[in-house]
Amino acid sequence: MALDLIRKPDLLAEAMTETASLVEAQLDALLPVPEAAEARLIEAMRYGVLNGGKRMRAFLVMETAKLFSVNITCAARVAAAVEMLHAYSLVHDDLPAMDDDDLRRGQPSCHKKFDEATAILAGDALQTRAFEVLAEEDTHTDPETRCDLVTAFALASGARGMVGGQMIDMLAEGKQLSGPEITRLQALKTGRLIQFSAEAGAILGRAPQAQRHFIIAYGRDLGGAFQIYDDVLDQTASAQEMGKTAGKDAAQGKATMVSILGLERARAQAERLAEQAASHLESFGPRAALLQALAHFTVTRKS
Amino acid sequence: MALDLIRKPDLLAEAMTETASLVEAQLDALLPVPEAAEARLIEAMRYGVLNGGKRMRAFLVMETAKLFSVNITCAARVAAAVEMLHAYSLVHDDLPAMDDDDLRRGQPSCHKKFDEATAILAGDALQTRAFEVLAEEDTHTDPETRCDLVTAFALASGARGMVGGQMIDMLAEGKQLSGPEITRLQALKTGRLIQFSAEAGAILGRAPQAQRHFIIAYGRDLGGAFQIYDDVLDQTASAQEMGKTAGKDAAQGKATMVSILGLERARAQAERLAEQAASHLESFGPRAALLQALAHFTVTRKS
Repeated sequence: MALDLIRKPDLLAEAMTETASLVEAQLDALLPVPEAAEARLIEAMRYGVLNGGKRMRAFLVMETAKLFSVNITCAARVAAAVEMLHAYSLVHDDLPAMDDDDLRRGQPSCHKKFDEATAILAGDALQTRAFEVLAEEDTHTDPETRCDLVTAFALASGARGMVGGQMIDMLAEGKQLSGPEITRLQALKTGRLIQFSAEAGAILGRAPQAQRHFIIAYGRDLGGAFQIYDDVLDQTASAQEMGKTAGKDAAQGKATMVSILGLERARAQAERLAEQAASHLESFGPRAALLQALAHFTVTRKS
Repeated sequence: MALDLIRKPDLLAEAMTETASLVEAQLDALLPVPEAAEARLIEAMRYGVLNGGKRMRAFLVMETAKLFSVNITCAARVAAAVEMLHAYSLVHDDLPAMDDDDLRRGQPSCHKKFDEATAILAGDALQTRAFEVLAEEDTHTDPETRCDLVTAFALASGARGMVGGQMIDMLAEGKQLSGPEITRLQALKTGRLIQFSAEAGAILGRAPQAQRHFIIAYGRDLGGAFQIYDDVLDQTASAQEMGKTAGKDAAQGKATMVSILGLERARAQAERLAEQAASHLESFGPRAALLQALAHFTVTRKS
C-alpha cells in the first residue's frame, strides 16, 4: 500500500480515543435520565450507546467536519446522532428474533441486561432522538443544512439503506448469495451509514460539490473495506478479540466475501478498497492524513 | 354537551373517509415496492400502515392545516408521516415481547403475517421514512418549518413521548397505578402524538402563537378524551367491534381509568374533556366545526 507516510497508528489511536471521549460526553449530555417512571427506558438507551465502542462513525463525522472548519460542538452533535442510530441498529440486531446475540462488545446485549421489550423500545427511542438532535437549532444555524442532514441520514439508515440491508441479511440465511449480491447487502447494511458519517462533515461545512464528491467516494470505499474486513475477522479472530460470537456467519451458512473469494483474496480486496478510499482524499493534502490512516486501520485492526 | 350544532355524524364520517383515501394515496406513493432483495421489508411496511384505520391523526393534520390555508399536498405528506409513525408503534407494540397481540384491526398483526424479524425491521424503517418525509423539500418550502416539524414530531414520539409512555405501560403490569400516573402514562403513550397531529397544521401554517396555543390545547384534551374512552371501550365493546382483543387491560391486571373511576365516571370524564377540547376552537368559528365534531365522535365511537 502507498500509505507508508500516513501509517501513524499511535497518532490515529490517540485521535480516536480523544474523539470517543468527546462524543461520549455529548451523548451523556443528550440523554439525561429523568426522575420519572420511564427512567428505565433512558437507562437502556444509555446502556446501548455508551458502551465503549471505537466510535469510528463519530470519528468520521468529526474529522471530515474539520476539513471544512465546522464548529466542533455542531459536529459532535451529529457524531452523537450517528452513534445513537448505530447503537439502535445493534440493539435491535441482537434481539432473539434477529441475530439472537447475548454478547455485544464483551458485555450482555441490551435485551439480556434489561429485557426484550425494553430493548425494542430503547432502540426505537434512540432512533427518534438521533433525528431530533439533527434537526435542533444547536446542530447548525442554517435550517436548510439541518434538513439536508436529516434527509441524508434517513436515506442511509432506512429501507433503502441500513434497515433494507438488514432485511436482505435475514433473508440470506441458508441461501448462497453471489458476490454482487453480498456487496449490495453490505453496502446497504453498514456501508451507507459509514458513508453518511463521512458526508456529514461536508454537509455541515456546506462543502463545494467537487469536494463533497471526494468525501462521499472515500466513505463508500471505506465502508466497503470495513465490511469485507469484518468477514475476514469473523473467520480469523477469536471471540475474545471480537467481543462477540465469532465464526457466526459461517455457522449460519451465510455466504460472506470470505466464503466467495477465500480468505486471502477477501483480505486483498479489503486492502485495495482501503487504499482507494485514502486516494480520494489526496486533494485535501496532509489535513486528511488521519482519515487516510483510518482507512489503513480499517483493514489491519484486530476486532 | 354543548355540541348540538356540530353533531353532524354523517358529514364528519364523509370528511374522514375522504381524508383517509387521500392520505392512503399519499402513503402508497411514498412507499413504492422496489424490485430488489429487500422488497419484503417494504411490503411489511405497507401492510403495517395501509390497513384501513380511521386515520384520526391524519384527519387532525389535514383539518388544522385547512384552518391556516396550508397547501393540501404538504399537509397530506405530514399526515402520511404521522400515520407511518403511528403504524410503526402498533407493529412494535403487537410483538410477542410487548403486548403479544395476534390481531390488529381484525387482521393478523404484522409479525403474524410476516415474521418477528421482519416486523421489527418494518417498524424501524417506518419511523425512518416518517422523519425523512417531514424533512424533504416537498413538505414545506421553508426549511425552518420542516425542522420545526421534525423536532416537535420527535418530542411527541420518543422517550419523552410515545415510547416513554409505552415503557411506563410495560412496567405497569401487575402494579396499581394512581389516577395521575395513568393520566401521565396515557398523555405520553397516545396523547402527545395526537396533540402533535393537531399542532402540525399550525406549524405548517406558521400560525400566530395565540392560535397555535388553542390548537395545542385542543389536541391535548382530545388526546385525553380519546384514551380514557379507549379504556371505556376496552371494558364494554366486543372483540369484533374493536378488531382486537377486548378486556385485555383488565385481564392483565393493568389499572385503567375505568378501574380507578368506574365505568360511568370514566365515560363522563372523557366527555368533559371532549367538550373542553371543542371549546378551545371557538375563536375559529364554523371553520373548526369538523374538528369539534371529531371531539364529540371520539367519545361516542363504537371502536
